Amino acid sequence: MNKDLKVVVIGAGSSYTPELIEGLLLREGSLPIRELWLVDIEAGRWKAEIIYQLALRMVERAGHSMKVILTDDRETALKEADFVCSQFRAGGIESRVQDEAIAAKFGMIAQETNGIVGLANALRTIPIALDIARQMEKLCPEAWLLNFTNPSGMVTEAILQQTSIKTLGLCNVPVIMEQSVLKVLDTTADELFFQVAGLNHLIWARKIQYKGQDKMPYILERAITDNHLMLPRNIEAFDWSPILLRQLEMLPCAYLRYFYTSWDTKPKQTHDQDKPNRADVVKEIETKLFDIYKDPNLDVKPKELELRGGQYYSESACRLMNAIYNDTGEIMHVNTTNHGAINGLPIDCVVEVSSVIRASGAHPLRVEAFPQDTLRLIQTMKTFEQLTIEAAINGSVGLALRALTLNPIIESGSSLELALKEILEQNLDATPAFKRDDINRLGGVKE
Amino acid sequence: MNKDLKVVVIGAGSSYTPELIEGLLLREGSLPIRELWLVDIEAGRWKAEIIYQLALRMVERAGHSMKVILTDDRETALKEADFVCSQFRAGGIESRVQDEAIAAKFGMIAQETNGIVGLANALRTIPIALDIARQMEKLCPEAWLLNFTNPSGMVTEAILQQTSIKTLGLCNVPVIMEQSVLKVLDTTADELFFQVAGLNHLIWARKIQYKGQDKMPYILERAITDNHLMLPRNIEAFDWSPILLRQLEMLPCAYLRYFYTSWDTKPKQTHDQDKPNRADVVKEIETKLFDIYKDPNLDVKPKELELRGGQYYSESACRLMNAIYNDTGEIMHVNTTNHGAINGLPIDCVVEVSSVIRASGAHPLRVEAFPQDTLRLIQTMKTFEQLTIEAAINGSVGLALRALTLNPIIESGSSLELALKEILEQNLDATPAFKRDDINRLGGVKE
Amino acid sequence: MNKDLKVVVIGAGSSYTPELIEGLLLREGSLPIRELWLVDIEAGRWKAEIIYQLALRMVERAGHSMKVILTDDRETALKEADFVCSQFRAGGIESRVQDEAIAAKFGMIAQETNGIVGLANALRTIPIALDIARQMEKLCPEAWLLNFTNPSGMVTEAILQQTSIKTLGLCNVPVIMEQSVLKVLDTTADELFFQVAGLNHLIWARKIQYKGQDKMPYILERAITDNHLMLPRNIEAFDWSPILLRQLEMLPCAYLRYFYTSWDTKPKQTHDQDKPNRADVVKEIETKLFDIYKDPNLDVKPKELELRGGQYYSESACRLMNAIYNDTGEIMHVNTTNHGAINGLPIDCVVEVSSVIRASGAHPLRVEAFPQDTLRLIQTMKTFEQLTIEAAINGSVGLALRALTLNPIIESGSSLELALKEILEQNLDATPAFKRDDINRLGGVKE
Amino acid sequence: MNKDLKVVVIGAGSSYTPELIEGLLLREGSLPIRELWLVDIEAGRWKAEIIYQLALRMVERAGHSMKVILTDDRETALKEADFVCSQFRAGGIESRVQDEAIAAKFGMIAQETNGIVGLANALRTIPIALDIARQMEKLCPEAWLLNFTNPSGMVTEAILQQTSIKTLGLCNVPVIMEQSVLKVLDTTADELFFQVAGLNHLIWARKIQYKGQDKMPYILERAITDNHLMLPRNIEAFDWSPILLRQLEMLPCAYLRYFYTSWDTKPKQTHDQDKPNRADVVKEIETKLFDIYKDPNLDVKPKELELRGGQYYSESACRLMNAIYNDTGEIMHVNTTNHGAINGLPIDCVVEVSSVIRASGAHPLRVEAFPQDTLRLIQTMKTFEQLTIEAAINGSVGLALRALTLNPIIESGSSLELALKEILEQNLDATPAFKRDDINRLGGVKE
Repeated sequence: MNKDLKVVVIGAGSSYTPELIEGLLLREGSLPIRELWLVDIEAGRWKAEIIYQLALRMVERAGHSMKVILTDDRETALKEADFVCSQFRAGGIESRVQDEAIAAKFGMIAQETNGIVGLANALRTIPIALDIARQMEKLCPEAWLLNFTNPSGMVTEAILQQTSIKTLGLCNVPVIMEQSVLKVLDTTADELFFQVAGLNHLIWARKIQYKGQDKMPYILERAITDNHLMLPRNIEAFDWSPILLRQLEMLPCAYLRYFYTSWDTKPKQTHDQDKPNRADVVKEIETKLFDIYKDPNLDVKPKELELRGGQYYSESACRLMNAIYNDTGEIMHVNTTNHGAINGLPIDCVVEVSSVIRASGAHPLRVEAFPQDTLRLIQTMKTFEQLTIEAAINGSVGLALRALTLNPIIESGSSLELALKEILEQNLDATPAFKRDDINRLGGVKE
Repeated sequence: MNKDLKVVVIGAGSSYTPELIEGLLLREGSLPIRELWLVDIEAGRWKAEIIYQLALRMVERAGHSMKVILTDDRETALKEADFVCSQFRAGGIESRVQDEAIAAKFGMIAQETNGIVGLANALRTIPIALDIARQMEKLCPEAWLLNFTNPSGMVTEAILQQTSIKTLGLCNVPVIMEQSVLKVLDTTADELFFQVAGLNHLIWARKIQYKGQDKMPYILERAITDNHLMLPRNIEAFDWSPILLRQLEMLPCAYLRYFYTSWDTKPKQTHDQDKPNRADVVKEIETKLFDIYKDPNLDVKPKELELRGGQYYSESACRLMNAIYNDTGEIMHVNTTNHGAINGLPIDCVVEVSSVIRASGAHPLRVEAFPQDTLRLIQTMKTFEQLTIEAAINGSVGLALRALTLNPIIESGSSLELALKEILEQNLDATPAFKRDDINRLGGVKE
Repeated sequence: MNKDLKVVVIGAGSSYTPELIEGLLLREGSLPIRELWLVDIEAGRWKAEIIYQLALRMVERAGHSMKVILTDDRETALKEADFVCSQFRAGGIESRVQDEAIAAKFGMIAQETNGIVGLANALRTIPIALDIARQMEKLCPEAWLLNFTNPSGMVTEAILQQTSIKTLGLCNVPVIMEQSVLKVLDTTADELFFQVAGLNHLIWARKIQYKGQDKMPYILERAITDNHLMLPRNIEAFDWSPILLRQLEMLPCAYLRYFYTSWDTKPKQTHDQDKPNRADVVKEIETKLFDIYKDPNLDVKPKELELRGGQYYSESACRLMNAIYNDTGEIMHVNTTNHGAINGLPIDCVVEVSSVIRASGAHPLRVEAFPQDTLRLIQTMKTFEQLTIEAAINGSVGLALRALTLNPIIESGSSLELALKEILEQNLDATPAFKRDDINRLGGVKE
Repeated sequence: MNKDLKVVVIGAGSSYTPELIEGLLLREGSLPIRELWLVDIEAGRWKAEIIYQLALRMVERAGHSMKVILTDDRETALKEADFVCSQFRAGGIESRVQDEAIAAKFGMIAQETNGIVGLANALRTIPIALDIARQMEKLCPEAWLLNFTNPSGMVTEAILQQTSIKTLGLCNVPVIMEQSVLKVLDTTADELFFQVAGLNHLIWARKIQYKGQDKMPYILERAITDNHLMLPRNIEAFDWSPILLRQLEMLPCAYLRYFYTSWDTKPKQTHDQDKPNRADVVKEIETKLFDIYKDPNLDVKPKELELRGGQYYSESACRLMNAIYNDTGEIMHVNTTNHGAINGLPIDCVVEVSSVIRASGAHPLRVEAFPQDTLRLIQTMKTFEQLTIEAAINGSVGLALRALTLNPIIESGSSLELALKEILEQNLDATPAFKRDDINRLGGVKE
């Protein structure tokens, strides 16, 4: 692999793209990029255009020789690509706003990945992700697909299950955890052995070792007293239960609050409906960001981008691209095929685990046995994911209902059926596999 | 085993005892009982006395030669016993009333076995059950312990794990399911192959075959349209989701409503707090029953007993005693060691499964693989049970909290800690393994 | 199922058939057979004709109304059949003679099922068995196929894996074990709980209980001192190692001598080559039997049949047919799908296990965990079987070599390749899936 | 860890020790060794003395400041040690000579680890290794034990199972494989991703990737045509079966010849008994080596040492010590706790796997599923190892016999019992846990 690289970004109109471009520019010495293709659909054109202009300015300022091309013709873009970065958002931020509203209306936890909003997102996203991967099978079968489209774990699993495309899923959650720990320990990455394991948005730090010493107990106590130190920007401060955290002996990712403190995180029916959901907040931040991006004098990544939850996302993508291209053997936290890394999960499912990255991809470290209750939670959520993937591919209302019924942060029963009905009706255009007749059966108990 | 039998009933003051006595009398020909010892503690003395007098009248009327002895001296009673029937209720009905009140106050599902009320019951009951089994190890090491003290599955597992006593756990839930199916199919037990599997109060009918024909689809449709036909007396009529039941392709036991329709079964905060809980209802029925039992002219089991939820309980105990004593090889549904009957559960945990009963005990039929989501639910609840057992034995607040946090019908977080705190404070006298200091730590988030 | 039955026997020219007919005649009251079709190929015509004439005389003498038909037209015979008994021997006794000669020449254990002779038999038999099952899919899709064609376990697994036909595999090995134990304990089947588990020709008695008492230790001591009491007719007397048997705490079937005393059972190169193999002995017995069968005055099963190894074979087939037809629920030892009965084996492989027989088929008792070394042996031999089945279906020389290399009673290396080469050349006509070119590659180390 | 290191070598009289010393001297910059303690027992005193003198000369020539101490007082040596290298040979080379002679006499494969000679070695070695580890628990509980005493896998497992000492087992087999592959590909370690997995002396290369390209097919073809390129010095040239190697799609280690070509590797009874065994050859080489070591002018590791099979052994030990001390994160192939690295093996057994080495020890890469037949072989040999370890600890003749009966390269039966009897009698002094009475029972079939 000594040739110049063609890199394609799908969903280039994302507000994260400037970070990605910055990362590529910074790695000029090790990643010889010839062409950077920015792809977005018509609906996102205006944003993509802003990003494109900013990209041109950033490339020029950096004095990089790569060519930047903006297009909505995915086929041309993918032809003979080397790396494809997928970061599209199916249905845009509007769909997320609508899904979260339905969830809130039914008093359900309205979070992007693990609950009913995550299911809706998966139903919309998986078919598109599969389309892209199938196009890649024809146009660039050897290319790597670096996926950071959410729900990243499910999307990666669907692609690996249904196509022959090499793909790794990325998420910034483990990166934020590691960065927080580095800050708390006041050290650098090479002095820390930091191993995570679990599923996307459902991970635990399994090892936190500084020069061979176990720092887990210390970090847990810090997480109990100063939890805000360890949270991503997009998660409100909250407290862990000291008893639970000491029992656990593992640092949970912030999304585990939905499982460990579900009572406290659920919208309180009466007053919370008027409070904006995370989707609304995100929408507002995005509007502001694009205003900044438009500034013709701006030719670097602006600081304001760091307010978005996705910090480190694009940095991870660049680091991963570099690790693969240069066969570095560094350890990264990625979504990849289990093949026994986590015992007790299906051999061919996708897990999020610390892995040695070589040119051939991810080689996970094996994960020591989880405590039995944690394993049950992971197994349950993996089954939720697998039922959801199957529902998305086959348009099965029954499987979607089973997935949600199993999910421990969701209450089952007639209200759930009604909520699912609204979600499916709302997303009907984006999920052609689903049939209106099947949806109509939801919520009817007797017949 | 050609000798006369000594049978001991622990918790003889139960309102179910007349059914048990009736069952023994009816089996005079096959079960040669010499002595029937009725044991109860001082607190239940007045009830036990009523039962004892009724028993004397019933035995006399039946013309049976067995001697009936009432005592609160468990040691004398257990000496050289052949069968011990355990049906005591730790803390009496009052404790259940109090536990259910706390659950209702916190808006939690207030049911006897799978939720926080079940946990409280287990914490109270397991230490006593272990005391009995350890006494048996000395006084009647070869005797069979037939346990129908709730939570039957956890109690059976604790005894098998901690002692050398042979025990089988009984529950009327599978019996009621089978009887209902027989009624719906208008047939008799010998023409039906009916196999159940799961955990106590968490079972599914896995096979319903009439002369080799699969009747599951027919029964499921009947369960959708006429569910009341299949419910035990102590469970209010409710409807299954047709979509879910058809997806499942297995008949769930009534307690699964708490998992399949949790939304609908949870007490509605506003008005349900005034509604009597099941424990209150049971208390009222019991009072009436003992009034009837007192009648000096009553010398048979009265019809009113059938209003209690436990119908078939004592009948099952008699049938099981007979199957063991006479090595019959009939199939019964019992709680016994898994040893691989249900794949995906620990080898040495206790499961509730259809088994061939021989003089050596239960020989379960192997269970075909459960659908993945059902398996996850069973695994999760088994882990809930095992954490609960360990908490009960070691007095561990942390394990009790982990058990409840994992339980999918219970919401986690600060309210849960407060609810558990109240439950543990309430039961402190009955659970000496727990320390007040540990309990006090519950509910405090930061320290 | 209240109709008269059509029963078909494939390989009717077997010397065992009179026992089968006797069994059917004895069950006149419970098995209402209308027609008995005797099917054999042209090559076995003369034997089938003798059997047919004897059958006519036996039916007449018994006064049974069933019609007996002899044919080589399998299609007509199978049409609307209710039970099909498969007992053909692919290639006839001659093929077995030849296979065993090659095995002996290379100093290999020459036994019918677990070694290279068993592999050769499987390669010849499985394609024919699949042909029959596929014909049944068209002509009698609801019929039961009772298979006692060897290797019974592999044949049953191949049929269940590749077709939709309901089938159970039978073997007389567990029946002989149980009968021997009954004789030694001087009791009858209803007083004994006798559970076996393993693979065909690789089973152990797991439970030997008489009225609830564990008789395993006693039986093992008897097996150590008087082993001849427990052997089938076709296995020469040999001694078990007392140390090994006491370690094992399970009664092994006689075929396990090949694994537990391989040194002693292997033909001694120098003098054993002249000794007749089992196949030669069988051939001689068969010739004598058919002379007897020809006697026009013979109208019952002759005593001499009991000298053949297969005693109880046909009796088991009749008993199984009756148990299915009449939904009896009795326990029999059959080859059926594992579905978790033996933990540590694939979910969908075939195992030989004690099972409750209902109209819907076999419902195995779950098997307690095997000692680790025994489990490893079972797992290894199951993998041998599965590689063999795949080799038979795909004509793969490489898989056949892998199967034998794994098999612990076979030495691997260049001589093995030469032995396999001869076996495959010898059987080339009967195994059309294998290609001569692939066979020729065997034995060449470098190229 | 910024302090000077105390390193202890147990079995310092080994002919490998000069390589170890050379390795330590070469790492002066990264491994600040203060004291090097050479420990050996009285019987090996003369060899240890020669090594000691050579060590003094080597250290002086290198100008290293470390102090070298020779002692037979293990207690003083172990006190506050940082690293302990265990390389003793229980019973010395003489015991191996005798064991191999018995094996040859019975026509058994006479190799040091996997067969009866390996079992004998384990029975002698494990008790001593446990003594050392228990001494370390008192004298240097935080020290690392780097074990290259054979059988390395079993010794490591015994120590991890029975003590709290941190230990890793080393073997040169994977190192030789990797070095051979580097030579064949004409590349360097940093460009190759080379992953092995299995058990000690039973491993396969699972990944051979050069810059992301799969080189396995190429290496396998080279192994077929030029196998001598890939063998350790102590293994005679032999050929792999091309069919088998292409089926396997993994590069087997040289010891797998005993499993893949057992026929060809077994001593031919007639003429091989006079041929010297490997042990005799080793003995001769050693005598020559010590003659060279004595030379007062020698002050570096002599070239002749490379003729011994153990090349790379001591180099690996030094590299591992460095990786731990400096927390390097490099990948090495070590014996460590499985914890799910290889699926299908016990969670707490020891496996030989490629691992990231940090200051906290080995973090194995997870291993993709083995082909089913290979897995069965690994599982079987692990059970052989575990029975052997248990036999060694408890002095159980029955378990030793079971271990050997299971082992597929060993024929079972009466001759095996006689061979084991001789082995145990021969080693009786070195294995005090075994009782003469139990040994005497071997070989007696009836009693």
